[in-house]
Amino acid sequence: MAKMTDMRELQFTKGHGTENDFVLVADLDGTHDVTAQQVRQITDRRAGIGADGVIRVVPTETATDQHVRDQGARARWFMDYRNADGSAAEMCGNGARVFAAYLRREGLETADEFAIATRGGIKLIRFEGDLIAVNLGDWRIVDAEGARDKGFDAMVKVHGHDPMPGLSLDMGNPHTVVALPDSADLASLDLTRVPDVHPLAPNGTNVEFVRPIGPGHIAMRVHERGVGETRSCGTGAAAAALATRWWAGTEMSIDDWRVDVPGGTLRVRALAGQQVELAGPAVLVADGVMTLYSSEAGLLS
Amino acid sequence: MAKMTDMRELQFTKGHGTENDFVLVADLDGTHDVTAQQVRQITDRRAGIGADGVIRVVPTETATDQHVRDQGARARWFMDYRNADGSAAEMCGNGARVFAAYLRREGLETADEFAIATRGGIKLIRFEGDLIAVNLGDWRIVDAEGARDKGFDAMVKVHGHDPMPGLSLDMGNPHTVVALPDSADLASLDLTRVPDVHPLAPNGTNVEFVRPIGPGHIAMRVHERGVGETRSCGTGAAAAALATRWWAGTEMSIDDWRVDVPGGTLRVRALAGQQVELAGPAVLVADGVMTLYSSEAGLLS
Repeated sequence: MAKMTDMRELQFTKGHGTENDFVLVADLDGTHDVTAQQVRQITDRRAGIGADGVIRVVPTETATDQHVRDQGARARWFMDYRNADGSAAEMCGNGARVFAAYLRREGLETADEFAIATRGGIKLIRFEGDLIAVNLGDWRIVDAEGARDKGFDAMVKVHGHDPMPGLSLDMGNPHTVVALPDSADLASLDLTRVPDVHPLAPNGTNVEFVRPIGPGHIAMRVHERGVGETRSCGTGAAAAALATRWWAGTEMSIDDWRVDVPGGTLRVRALAGQQVELAGPAVLVADGVMTLYSSEAGLLS
Repeated sequence: MAKMTDMRELQFTKGHGTENDFVLVADLDGTHDVTAQQVRQITDRRAGIGADGVIRVVPTETATDQHVRDQGARARWFMDYRNADGSAAEMCGNGARVFAAYLRREGLETADEFAIATRGGIKLIRFEGDLIAVNLGDWRIVDAEGARDKGFDAMVKVHGHDPMPGLSLDMGNPHTVVALPDSADLASLDLTRVPDVHPLAPNGTNVEFVRPIGPGHIAMRVHERGVGETRSCGTGAAAAALATRWWAGTEMSIDDWRVDVPGGTLRVRALAGQQVELAGPAVLVADGVMTLYSSEAGLLS
């Protein structure tokens, strides 16, 4: 077996928002960072705990990035988000909601509304009954002028279907939303392969497939850039609702949308000033202690 | 959000053997069973902890099955194994090794060799340095007479390849082992679909694809019946080694085999009396408390 030296006992909490799941690690004095290798151990679904990402809970003033520390006047806590591969991420909508649930349970924030610091800037949290809402900030249709007549600016090809028109949105990250034709069934869509998007943005795009259910109500599945299909995607749900709202036109301007994703249900609200809010449940599932090793175990020596 | 009533705090340990992973639940006085619904909550990789199965650690004399209680004279502890879907299983080779690691860590068994009770009967555990070995018991080639000349008794078709010959073994559960032709690459084999096996046993079969590495050394990938490809399968590794040993013939009878699986390395030893032993690492990764709810959360009400 591989040598197991330099062991570290790591306290953690596991939580999820519509089955987007996270391991939270409290570092309340900002002195216990986690390495990229440790993040990969933690998020490994078989050899570790398993999660879409790790959220380190850390005081804003102890962040290493100046632009995060600058948020300290408004936000006490920094959501230090790491992708499962160990890289740092700017923001995660469902992650922010789970982060907020943790801050409240631990008594680190007690108000119904407060700000959190992220690499993507200040985000506002709001508790509303059982739901936790986060203002995702600014959004825009990438080519609103060009797409106005046709309603789309890209073509998306999924295995077994003719190319379908898609609309590109910038939610801080790139999205392409496809309204399924009547001939296509949302549940049976093959998303095991990366959808072909033309033209493709330089850094790729997340693709949402949408089926209208009723006024202000859609169902969606999402293929996340670099990940594959996921059970939920916060910015994807927002993009899907906002694209559908835009297609509906101003005469039927519904601002509150229910978005059914495979992992549950989210609410998307178009706010004044071209901002958007994501709301939904956030559940803290388990608390524990994980043993981290400096080298990965599992092989005979 | 769904009502969360009848909450239960469940202490657990997560462990794995070559990335076959398990949640262990200690029930040391045999009074706290877990329901099938709770098993599904625990094993859910996003809304729960996530695992291939749940192992309840329970005194043998408190088992509900008489044929398990009858093992109480030889084995103090019963490995009450549940599949991720909540159903009870007879036995799991890697699970037994992780179960043994837990019994030792908790001081519930202190000897280097001891017996455990399973629905599949008494199993013998042996600690050997960093490895934990379990005697899987009897095995046989299903149609040794019929397959003697050809070396196989089934044809296995995988997407993109011509049908390949396979050998059926009974390890307590059914296996079909395929030695890859030189034209096929183990790593690039498409196991996302169920391999077609002809003739197929009435209850299906687990299929192992084997590449020889050297004397007494093979690499394998496995498609588990009802599950799909997994990172490791204990009885599958044993079947793969024993089929390869049988193909090699009696003049080159190696009894100790190294089997590389995607999740690590196992050792398979052919014992006297047509029995087989599985050995490898077993790692206890994390300990914690999970909150179980009587109804599943995640949907807006």
